[in-house]
Amino acid sequence: MSGSGSKEEPLTVAGCRFWQFPTFADQRGYLTVADFATMSFPVRRVFYISQVPEGQTRANHAQRESKELLLAITGTVSVLIDDGRNRQSIVLWRRNVGLLIAPKTLCSLSHFSKDAVLAVFASHPYDVADQVGDYDEFLSISVGNSQRL
Amino acid sequence: MSGSGSKEEPLTVAGCRFWQFPTFADQRGYLTVADFATMSFPVRRVFYISQVPEGQTRANHAQRESKELLLAITGTVSVLIDDGRNRQSIVLWRRNVGLLIAPKTLCSLSHFSKDAVLAVFASHPYDVADQVGDYDEFLSISVGNSQRL
Repeated sequence: MSGSGSKEEPLTVAGCRFWQFPTFADQRGYLTVADFATMSFPVRRVFYISQVPEGQTRANHAQRESKELLLAITGTVSVLIDDGRNRQSIVLWRRNVGLLIAPKTLCSLSHFSKDAVLAVFASHPYDVADQVGDYDEFLSISVGNSQRL
Repeated sequence: MSGSGSKEEPLTVAGCRFWQFPTFADQRGYLTVADFATMSFPVRRVFYISQVPEGQTRANHAQRESKELLLAITGTVSVLIDDGRNRQSIVLWRRNVGLLIAPKTLCSLSHFSKDAVLAVFASHPYDVADQVGDYDEFLSISVGNSQRL
């Protein structure tokens, strides 16, 4: 099993953190594992975002309840996260380091590289009612400084 | 939701079949969903195989119990499947069509394109004792003409 040696940028957004996926490398290539028994929440689904045209953004909302774990399977993606108090932009590019997004965190995805495929592991079924896109409404539910994951 | 219009090659290997993942396409790109509540087996883990050098093969074994669903997230991968009676080679390249592999099916992965990332959804935790790599032993457990999934 091989990890990345260097440190990630410190996260200041409440409840969000990096997640290291086990990776096994040998002469046959790389194998990265998402074993749901070891993850920090029960994974109900995973979806893959790809072929996002230049200039487009995705997500742009918080989830009331759902936790998500983002992994750039290939390419690079920018993730803006905001807890109502702190805001931070993270570039995902490592094949074995994901970003855990706490509930009630505003998340915006942008700057997808042409080859980018973003995997999103989610704790809940899809429910548009769980999404909060309006910023004022988001601020009303955000808890800024609490630890949520 | 958009599917591929055309037919896949008919599968002759017992218990194996194609699996269509819902895909949502709009001006912001593509979103392909693996919702575990709708899949044909409980998904315990998913692993990603990438950067496989030319000429290398992977898997080359059957699983006694585990079911697997293969999806070429990007690029192309050849999958040789064998139930002890029928043998077939399938090229995976569609972003929304996976291949369900029944237990007791010999499976060999090869011809990974340079950009290939293969997702493997699995029904069981990793267990090397579940794998059968010896062909004679495989034949002794294969059931050839039964429907297993």
